[in-house]
Amino acid sequence: MPPMSDYESLLARLAELGHLGHAAALLGWDQQCYMPHGGALARANAMGAMGKLLHERFTDDETGRLLSNAEAEGAEEGSDQALTLRAVRRDYDKSVKLPTALVSSLARETALAHEIWVKARQENSFAQFAPTLEKLLGLSRDVADHLGHGGCRYDALLDQYEPGMTTAQVATVFAEVRDGLLPLMEIIREGEPVDNSCLKRGFDDKTQLQFAEYIAKKLGFDFERGRQDMAVHPFCQGLHRTDVRITTRVETHWLPGALMGTIHEAGHGMYEQGFDPKDDDTPLSGAASLAFHESQSRLWENIIGRSRTFWNVFYPGLQHHFPGVLADVDVHQFYRAINHVEPSLVRVEADEVTYCLHIFLRFELEQELVAGTLAVKDIPEAWSAKMEQYLGITPPSDALGCLQDVHWSGAMFGYFPTYALGTMLSAQLFEKALASDSTIEPGLVRGDYAPLLGWLRTNVHQPGRRYLPGELTERICGEPLSAKPLIRYLHSKYREIYVAEHRDRKRIL
Amino acid sequence: MPPMSDYESLLARLAELGHLGHAAALLGWDQQCYMPHGGALARANAMGAMGKLLHERFTDDETGRLLSNAEAEGAEEGSDQALTLRAVRRDYDKSVKLPTALVSSLARETALAHEIWVKARQENSFAQFAPTLEKLLGLSRDVADHLGHGGCRYDALLDQYEPGMTTAQVATVFAEVRDGLLPLMEIIREGEPVDNSCLKRGFDDKTQLQFAEYIAKKLGFDFERGRQDMAVHPFCQGLHRTDVRITTRVETHWLPGALMGTIHEAGHGMYEQGFDPKDDDTPLSGAASLAFHESQSRLWENIIGRSRTFWNVFYPGLQHHFPGVLADVDVHQFYRAINHVEPSLVRVEADEVTYCLHIFLRFELEQELVAGTLAVKDIPEAWSAKMEQYLGITPPSDALGCLQDVHWSGAMFGYFPTYALGTMLSAQLFEKALASDSTIEPGLVRGDYAPLLGWLRTNVHQPGRRYLPGELTERICGEPLSAKPLIRYLHSKYREIYVAEHRDRKRIL
Repeated sequence: MPPMSDYESLLARLAELGHLGHAAALLGWDQQCYMPHGGALARANAMGAMGKLLHERFTDDETGRLLSNAEAEGAEEGSDQALTLRAVRRDYDKSVKLPTALVSSLARETALAHEIWVKARQENSFAQFAPTLEKLLGLSRDVADHLGHGGCRYDALLDQYEPGMTTAQVATVFAEVRDGLLPLMEIIREGEPVDNSCLKRGFDDKTQLQFAEYIAKKLGFDFERGRQDMAVHPFCQGLHRTDVRITTRVETHWLPGALMGTIHEAGHGMYEQGFDPKDDDTPLSGAASLAFHESQSRLWENIIGRSRTFWNVFYPGLQHHFPGVLADVDVHQFYRAINHVEPSLVRVEADEVTYCLHIFLRFELEQELVAGTLAVKDIPEAWSAKMEQYLGITPPSDALGCLQDVHWSGAMFGYFPTYALGTMLSAQLFEKALASDSTIEPGLVRGDYAPLLGWLRTNVHQPGRRYLPGELTERICGEPLSAKPLIRYLHSKYREIYVAEHRDRKRIL
Repeated sequence: MPPMSDYESLLARLAELGHLGHAAALLGWDQQCYMPHGGALARANAMGAMGKLLHERFTDDETGRLLSNAEAEGAEEGSDQALTLRAVRRDYDKSVKLPTALVSSLARETALAHEIWVKARQENSFAQFAPTLEKLLGLSRDVADHLGHGGCRYDALLDQYEPGMTTAQVATVFAEVRDGLLPLMEIIREGEPVDNSCLKRGFDDKTQLQFAEYIAKKLGFDFERGRQDMAVHPFCQGLHRTDVRITTRVETHWLPGALMGTIHEAGHGMYEQGFDPKDDDTPLSGAASLAFHESQSRLWENIIGRSRTFWNVFYPGLQHHFPGVLADVDVHQFYRAINHVEPSLVRVEADEVTYCLHIFLRFELEQELVAGTLAVKDIPEAWSAKMEQYLGITPPSDALGCLQDVHWSGAMFGYFPTYALGTMLSAQLFEKALASDSTIEPGLVRGDYAPLLGWLRTNVHQPGRRYLPGELTERICGEPLSAKPLIRYLHSKYREIYVAEHRDRKRIL
């Protein structure tokens, strides 16, 4: 064999780090799916050690030397080699700013925090979680300071999840979404009420899981390269393009929980499974950003999974899976039920219209927490106030309020905004997909999701980490991220559902 | 904080390696329990990378330097510090002999081999597995040569699993066992037949698992610090004293499969859970040897789980769990059924009397394979010939013959003998336990396993890796490993079961 170039040596080094990262990722998956309670401390130590190792190896001088030499070797502009070097440079420059001790400490403390959060949530006691949250917030501020920022620590944290996006930019697009949503919510409040009680009948747990997995398979999630398990807080963890774990939870008296949750996670999973095989074990294999990740989950969950065409295809199968339970509900009633809009307490079960409001609340609280203008102990009160302001309801408990999400126990401040950004992006991508490929819509009508998935593969999944999220949006859509497609989509859909006049017109057409 | 001594630095370094080893171990558990098929290659890469990392870190100069310095600092003879240094020195001197490339290659190749073996076994085709086995055998010979041996490569491999034991010693004790078993088998052949058809009735799979876990819990397996999952080939994987994974498989028409299998693995699991908490994350926390490990599994599975006192306690519960299924079978009939002796094809389901013969066969074939006097392609034929010789039966298929065990796909040549050594040791330890603690036997009669588990904790589990297996046997039993207790135990138990005259005498007494 000829000696390796520095670029090849760099790739080999990063591939090996990827293999080690696979082991670290499995620790996280298992922690949430199978680890016995007693193993929490040992697991935290293992996660801390792996986090330290990965950070040390990635940021060591040898990586820097190979990277600089490879950059000096040069690469054709726009080539995979040039894009790879750019991505690695970005990651490297960010990572070297963080001391290994801080990274290791974060990995260990968040692993410990997970168990504390689970218990606090079960026992409905924010006070149990508060000291941990205080500690994680301190570590996150340290992270922000090490990464550097122009006075707004939240900028630095946000950039970890959505590279290139600033707090001010997020605030601007969120305001646009809010301005579009408020009139729609008014229309819905005054519209024809939707009865979703049929979703609260008794649905056998095991059958719910079977049906949800059947749907995930139909949409394109590959169970040869993935699996589904149960978790307290549903998530998707890609260990590799060929091994993607999705999770769900089941409630007997709430059909959308497992069903729509599975479609959501399968959307994430199809993204992870859709990276280009030729990028396997390279820095290009990965998601462009968390907003891009969420665009996939929400596109499949909502734009597809809550559409009329989808239920025209699958409703008979659903009725068949639960004999008798939905016999008196026709597909039209079911479609309205599954799109019932009502301010609610739990983000992951919020409807499409109010979902973003849950994010705005968290975005605002997080900024204050990171800035120190809101004390940890005051979170429950602040949460309630914001819930009242945005949704007009008050959580009866911490478990249904500020303890509902896993993210803060993982010190993932700056993560939440990507959910709303991804929601916007989902509508923008779908509009573009329909306009670009005329086989997609007929496919959806007959329950063939291959044309849509194919378009997403080519345009969203396979580019992987070649482009910054802003660049990728421009490349695909020919314009920057915009709130307009989401607002158009929601208005069109929900007017039809809630305003008889609109519905009737559509039926005649 | 005062600066750490070299001994303390060594311990810290090894603790961190232990945390990383936790991650590596989880990769193996998940591979056998949950990994989707498509993930096999990525998993092999991850296991290879972790194997390489662990070996590199353990064998690097810094470990050697700290170890030498710590030895030079000195430690009181017999103290934990002295015993720790001795254990680490033993491991280190062995490990540095193996090139990292070989260790990494073994980790990766065995991970790939696992999938190939599972498929070959499913499709009953040894030919599919043969090239892989050939490769693993080559790597294992390399390992033996690097470790060094006095002409017998198998000695070096065996020593990895049973430190201090030679091939010749094993052959000698195995001959003693064989000589004790042959007359007993003759007695059984001519004895009163046992009908075990009641074990082949239909037992609901889920209930089997529930009952098995109930028993495991009663015996002392702690589900707060462990769990049970399903696997193709049952095994126990301790990630840490506080997180021990056991596995099983269920057959509707073979009750002992899951039930006795679970007790067996729980025996392994209780050993792993029983290490001294003060040894956590140190080199002393671990099993003395694989024979000691197997002594625990076989003690609980057979000496306890197939005893009359055990079934006097649990048989009503078993009948209750499977309503009607065993209504016509009394505890005496069931006790005989669960101890039915008959030459059979599958090692893990062999009865106590014929079990060791399965090991002798493997021990002999492995020696020839490693020596190169038996070609891989000739294994099925050689297997059949040995089965005929030892057990008088011939496997109808490779799946029920030479493909039945997972070990060779893991390149674990030299591992099998520890099963028979452990079986011998189980009887020897149990004899000693009864003689040492008069509360154990009454405990067993009333279904209280705490006295026995307590004795094992103190004498077997908590010493951990302080002593070589031979030393530990001497310390506990006051004599070296011996075949006599096993032969005494089997003769006494099975004469009573198979020879009416013995049984009646016992009943009168």
